[in-house]
Amino acid sequence: MIDHQRLHDLNQSKQAEHQLRLGYLSDLLSRRGLDAQDVIQQLVQFQVAIPSWALGTGGTRFGRFPLGGEPRNLEEKIQDIGLLNQLNGSSNSISLHIPWDIPKDVAAIQQRLQEQKLVIDSVNSNTFQDQKEQAYSYKFGSLCHTEQGVREQAIQHNIECVRYGEQLGAKTHTVWLADGSNFPGQQHFRRAYQRTQESLAAIYEALPSDWTMLIEYKPYEPNFYSMIIPDWGTSYSLCQQLGKQAQVLVDLGHHLPNTNIEQIVGRLLHFGRLGGFHFNGSMYGDDDLTTGSMKPFQLFLIFNELVDGAQDSAVSNPAVAYMIDASHNTKDPLEDLLQSVDNILGAYAKALLVDRAQLGEYQQHNDVVRAEELLRDAFLTDVRPLVQAAYRQAGGAIDPISAYRTAGVREQLIQQRGKLSLSTGL
Amino acid sequence: MIDHQRLHDLNQSKQAEHQLRLGYLSDLLSRRGLDAQDVIQQLVQFQVAIPSWALGTGGTRFGRFPLGGEPRNLEEKIQDIGLLNQLNGSSNSISLHIPWDIPKDVAAIQQRLQEQKLVIDSVNSNTFQDQKEQAYSYKFGSLCHTEQGVREQAIQHNIECVRYGEQLGAKTHTVWLADGSNFPGQQHFRRAYQRTQESLAAIYEALPSDWTMLIEYKPYEPNFYSMIIPDWGTSYSLCQQLGKQAQVLVDLGHHLPNTNIEQIVGRLLHFGRLGGFHFNGSMYGDDDLTTGSMKPFQLFLIFNELVDGAQDSAVSNPAVAYMIDASHNTKDPLEDLLQSVDNILGAYAKALLVDRAQLGEYQQHNDVVRAEELLRDAFLTDVRPLVQAAYRQAGGAIDPISAYRTAGVREQLIQQRGKLSLSTGL
Amino acid sequence: MIDHQRLHDLNQSKQAEHQLRLGYLSDLLSRRGLDAQDVIQQLVQFQVAIPSWALGTGGTRFGRFPLGGEPRNLEEKIQDIGLLNQLNGSSNSISLHIPWDIPKDVAAIQQRLQEQKLVIDSVNSNTFQDQKEQAYSYKFGSLCHTEQGVREQAIQHNIECVRYGEQLGAKTHTVWLADGSNFPGQQHFRRAYQRTQESLAAIYEALPSDWTMLIEYKPYEPNFYSMIIPDWGTSYSLCQQLGKQAQVLVDLGHHLPNTNIEQIVGRLLHFGRLGGFHFNGSMYGDDDLTTGSMKPFQLFLIFNELVDGAQDSAVSNPAVAYMIDASHNTKDPLEDLLQSVDNILGAYAKALLVDRAQLGEYQQHNDVVRAEELLRDAFLTDVRPLVQAAYRQAGGAIDPISAYRTAGVREQLIQQRGKLSLSTGL
Amino acid sequence: MIDHQRLHDLNQSKQAEHQLRLGYLSDLLSRRGLDAQDVIQQLVQFQVAIPSWALGTGGTRFGRFPLGGEPRNLEEKIQDIGLLNQLNGSSNSISLHIPWDIPKDVAAIQQRLQEQKLVIDSVNSNTFQDQKEQAYSYKFGSLCHTEQGVREQAIQHNIECVRYGEQLGAKTHTVWLADGSNFPGQQHFRRAYQRTQESLAAIYEALPSDWTMLIEYKPYEPNFYSMIIPDWGTSYSLCQQLGKQAQVLVDLGHHLPNTNIEQIVGRLLHFGRLGGFHFNGSMYGDDDLTTGSMKPFQLFLIFNELVDGAQDSAVSNPAVAYMIDASHNTKDPLEDLLQSVDNILGAYAKALLVDRAQLGEYQQHNDVVRAEELLRDAFLTDVRPLVQAAYRQAGGAIDPISAYRTAGVREQLIQQRGKLSLSTGL
Repeated sequence: MIDHQRLHDLNQSKQAEHQLRLGYLSDLLSRRGLDAQDVIQQLVQFQVAIPSWALGTGGTRFGRFPLGGEPRNLEEKIQDIGLLNQLNGSSNSISLHIPWDIPKDVAAIQQRLQEQKLVIDSVNSNTFQDQKEQAYSYKFGSLCHTEQGVREQAIQHNIECVRYGEQLGAKTHTVWLADGSNFPGQQHFRRAYQRTQESLAAIYEALPSDWTMLIEYKPYEPNFYSMIIPDWGTSYSLCQQLGKQAQVLVDLGHHLPNTNIEQIVGRLLHFGRLGGFHFNGSMYGDDDLTTGSMKPFQLFLIFNELVDGAQDSAVSNPAVAYMIDASHNTKDPLEDLLQSVDNILGAYAKALLVDRAQLGEYQQHNDVVRAEELLRDAFLTDVRPLVQAAYRQAGGAIDPISAYRTAGVREQLIQQRGKLSLSTGL
Repeated sequence: MIDHQRLHDLNQSKQAEHQLRLGYLSDLLSRRGLDAQDVIQQLVQFQVAIPSWALGTGGTRFGRFPLGGEPRNLEEKIQDIGLLNQLNGSSNSISLHIPWDIPKDVAAIQQRLQEQKLVIDSVNSNTFQDQKEQAYSYKFGSLCHTEQGVREQAIQHNIECVRYGEQLGAKTHTVWLADGSNFPGQQHFRRAYQRTQESLAAIYEALPSDWTMLIEYKPYEPNFYSMIIPDWGTSYSLCQQLGKQAQVLVDLGHHLPNTNIEQIVGRLLHFGRLGGFHFNGSMYGDDDLTTGSMKPFQLFLIFNELVDGAQDSAVSNPAVAYMIDASHNTKDPLEDLLQSVDNILGAYAKALLVDRAQLGEYQQHNDVVRAEELLRDAFLTDVRPLVQAAYRQAGGAIDPISAYRTAGVREQLIQQRGKLSLSTGL
Repeated sequence: MIDHQRLHDLNQSKQAEHQLRLGYLSDLLSRRGLDAQDVIQQLVQFQVAIPSWALGTGGTRFGRFPLGGEPRNLEEKIQDIGLLNQLNGSSNSISLHIPWDIPKDVAAIQQRLQEQKLVIDSVNSNTFQDQKEQAYSYKFGSLCHTEQGVREQAIQHNIECVRYGEQLGAKTHTVWLADGSNFPGQQHFRRAYQRTQESLAAIYEALPSDWTMLIEYKPYEPNFYSMIIPDWGTSYSLCQQLGKQAQVLVDLGHHLPNTNIEQIVGRLLHFGRLGGFHFNGSMYGDDDLTTGSMKPFQLFLIFNELVDGAQDSAVSNPAVAYMIDASHNTKDPLEDLLQSVDNILGAYAKALLVDRAQLGEYQQHNDVVRAEELLRDAFLTDVRPLVQAAYRQAGGAIDPISAYRTAGVREQLIQQRGKLSLSTGL
Repeated sequence: MIDHQRLHDLNQSKQAEHQLRLGYLSDLLSRRGLDAQDVIQQLVQFQVAIPSWALGTGGTRFGRFPLGGEPRNLEEKIQDIGLLNQLNGSSNSISLHIPWDIPKDVAAIQQRLQEQKLVIDSVNSNTFQDQKEQAYSYKFGSLCHTEQGVREQAIQHNIECVRYGEQLGAKTHTVWLADGSNFPGQQHFRRAYQRTQESLAAIYEALPSDWTMLIEYKPYEPNFYSMIIPDWGTSYSLCQQLGKQAQVLVDLGHHLPNTNIEQIVGRLLHFGRLGGFHFNGSMYGDDDLTTGSMKPFQLFLIFNELVDGAQDSAVSNPAVAYMIDASHNTKDPLEDLLQSVDNILGAYAKALLVDRAQLGEYQQHNDVVRAEELLRDAFLTDVRPLVQAAYRQAGGAIDPISAYRTAGVREQLIQQRGKLSLSTGL
């Protein structure tokens, strides 16, 4: 979509300004004993997966305003994510959604992935919608359903997801359940939990030994009285019962108002059970906005926990699987994803600036003001030159959104795929 | 759908039990100086409109699980509401949604309405979705849009709604705006408000002098950063600027967590600006569940304000337009509507039991316990026999849902309209 | 305070009306196959503890408006609870708060308790305030504190609570921790959790083998960024690590907005880890209002879970310790407690009416409307005659609040204890 | 407390680093066409009032952990605020609270103010607590009370506040009402509103013609069912009825969860009715934490509206009265106030960087990404050198908190005033 020369030229035009800003910042950091290049190197290594369903214009139940040029199949989705990764070097993996992304020609898909230097990191099941060929409906639940036939069908679907994932080299299976109830009395809480646990155990049994199973939680929507896995406590207890390959997945938008999410992150790291993280932005609920667009300080505090856990030998948590999980109703989805990655890297960079030994000292002596100021110092630092340097060093664009626009990518996509192409997704 | 003899027979089988319960309750009420028949009479008179879009299975952005037999056009919608009204005698009016319900043959529609003893009470515009033939998109707003062309189109659509309504005898035009923004910076708050006000003024000018224009508010969804009319204060200020025919519309699901809605009702009655009320049930947000299913005490307290205002000569508020505005994702929509009306009438009946003179005494002397107990006495009274008597006296079924099921209405509708018929709505 | 003859006379004057209402209700219940006396018997057996600190006028941080006649010491607190129990027969146990209620003369206290037919059911520690003689301050936490000396002091205080409790026959120790942080960075989440766990383990070790230790959770207040035990998941994980005698305590007011509390109750019963329940009412946060005053349907749904768990042989949860934990700012505390018990018993009575076999059938077949209606049928039934009968059969007053007022109890208390007496509490 | 030489020396030690950072930033800003000194000048002019009650350690209803050295009277409060103003040059005015700050010797107070170059900007009434000498209690309300005597007393108290304020040169009277109800039925919403309006009118009448009366709103606490002025809509309608000198006061902590406060600010500016702004930080409710400590992006977005309104000739809003209104439970109050001012100035500085013409262009064409990025560019800029320059240019400390600590101010205050001195406040 953007040839290398073009990208190189675009970078050239931004280079002088970028170098100036990077130079200033590097100087300031070095005065605090920090090496800018160290931070940049860690940013380059950071990768966040893009889900196949995030490439099209999303919508709410009230409507959808498509933009055109959306990918019509898995091959085109790979193309889009390859483009993102070309621009920011931070999105080298894809999360598949089954059945939307069932690979018809595995070898061809593998070839495409290789060409784009992408990998499939995880598969995601869908038991929140009915598919045409389905024997049973998920109207009243899937893994928690009262009828064995429905549960069996949902279990088989999940196992099928894992099998597709194996063909493509994935190592993670993510289960998000829309199961729940809309009205008091509709569902027997304890029995529904028990059935869910047993269904999950059946899926877990089919899991390859080097795979991880992520259990996502969400307090409401699409069910508005109860959700079968409403909170981290429920995910955690299910994981405990399933075994070591089961881990909790935290989605930023899946919390009740005012929840301290960074504390949950810290808890799960402490228990060694934080398996995955879904990024998005929200003000009211599962708003699925651009990551970092609403609560940038919260995003920083979450990265503060993640970095703190990663640097602490007392923590024995496996590597966390990061993914952007948003719905792009208002913006061009690709621009939205570029912004999200930008905000994620910015928060990560800031968390890397924190002097943890010093912070620990202040905490130990309850010097609240100094401890807070130390965190705020990192948060208030303008780290954008570091993120831009990471893009450039990874072979991408100093300013990915400008490059995307200047190259006229959306116009090209519309020309190729049509104004009315509609991608799967929400 | 249910012939009169059938209904009569069903009532006969329930009559003895009903009479016994009604007798017990009447005796208890008379000991408090209350006449059961007085209350029943007021229940019989109470009417709540059914919107045309509430007759089909709703859905969330995650999926939709249709049920079959949904009305395919306005004629069939009238049929469904006629059936509801036959069963409970409380739903004699219809709210139309334009463009979903544009009448093709006005005379034929009028005839149908007359046959079913129904009236059209209000029209509702839709500028939250794009229609195929539209010149401009509402992606970035309608009445608040930055481009005059879009605003013009939305104004004309609203005026067109009023014109259709005039043909069918409606007297109310309801404006709910999805307009808003998803991201900080997207919209200039003050200018967007100013444009909205001017657009509304243009619609107001086209309003017949005996019509009311209702301005609905909602804090979020489908926009997740700001809504152009997020709260009653904004609706109220717009109404003040528009004139006397403009009134605030309160929708139960359109409030931030923990809002005291009954106090807002009292405020608006005090200002003489409560024009309409949309009923539904919610636990988290605009969940659009069965009215009264989640917070029955809140529903009672709201009716307590409505009855208090209606009985107080100090209040000069016009008659409030009541409507059920819900989305039936899990239940048969017609059963859901029967339940909703049942809960509404129950809350109303309880509010009618309150001894307001005595309550005023307790309030005057700050006897908090006695004032509260007086309200709770009404709330705890089992008023179902009164509601059933009202149904029966209005020519309906003592137990509408049982009648609906026994008569096999849904099965008939599926046979007539097919398993896959899909009604418009959310 | 109220002699037996007086109580008898008061009951006489209410008896005819009560019998009539009870007769009507018993008839209606028997037509559903329910025996009113069976329900009444279970209500008579239900006991909810009164905490010693709930007998005085509470307050907010903005002010306190005392009422007079508040108990000045443990002896007078026993007197007050004895009076409540005389009136409703449902409050035969007391929760002590240390250090506010340290018994000076154990034998004398025991004698008083015996006279009033009361027992001490639990002790509660206080590490959220500094006491005058304390070596270390709890300003920055207690069991989670960074300094070992503070933790040691807090552990010893908790063990001391248990020792006092043993002297008086208690079997439960309740730990609520105000520990947390007000600012990001103030506290290291993982280390603070680890220290808390170790401190709790030290207390647990000192627990007699027939005691239970209850771990309470709360999301915010008095700390407004993080609380060390913010949610049931944290309480639960601590209990798992401590051992079988540790159980989760649910306080109705300690949840984020819109939490489905009844589902948490079901979860914990399923895990066999629901140890205690604190009743109060709230609309916004830990408002500590009269139980049942705000969300009576929620209270019913919680009892629905409790009764369902108690009747299900699949559940192996120990007996739940019930307590009222409220702050009486506006009402006479004793009237508030009588109302609270009344609402609790009403919710319990309704939950006892539910036909669980039938409900299970509807749930099994996903007949959402029928399942919901079955629950609502119980909720809408006016069970007040059953509660009154339970009072009477337990030797109390048919109408406890009327009896309390008619007997002029508050006036007597003020005369005895003075207008300015101030009880400990919040 | 800190002599000038000391301050000068402290600044000297920070000067080189400061100049370097300022130089870098000035260069970067000038490349965007912005003059750093222009921004600094506006920061120097910005003043935020300190309320007399914010100088002592606050507390929650659970406890209070005093720090020592708190001001014991108005003279000492003036001393403390003078010190703050010496350090940051941004707090040259004081808000008085009556009756806590009734000046005994007006001339002496005026002299002190002059010495410290401070002014009294506003007075605040207190009808949320009972004072010893009071005839009537405010337990059940003040301006809304059912008894005329109570209302009269509260009106007179408010007028008395204005009179004290006149003596000291204040021009603003702030009314915050704790009035409301804790239980349904306790208060008649409409009549209580009517009485409040009439009481406010009586106070308004006594207002000097060059004074402003600010009407503050709050949704809950200390009343937990209803507050008489729960939202901006109620404040606004009261102001409309009172007259032009009445204005709405927005307190950051007085909103329901998820409220878009910046939009309210925009609304009120549009109506010309934004009179005052109370700063603090919150995560859950009226947490009264350090301003900017929890939601720095929200604080920036609010300043974005304020600056936008101030620069827009279409807005005819009077100057907004700024005040910090927080409760310092965990930190040294003076450090907390220094941090708050720092965060406020930072947010203001960022808002001043926004290119409003360009933003308007993006908004006009619905270029959501560019509009958002433009705002974020300002937010992400590290403006601390500008704030420090403003301190220095105003004669203060480059790093006020360091200066405060290095000079050992708290230790001096404890020595002067004692370890146990307790200031009035919450």
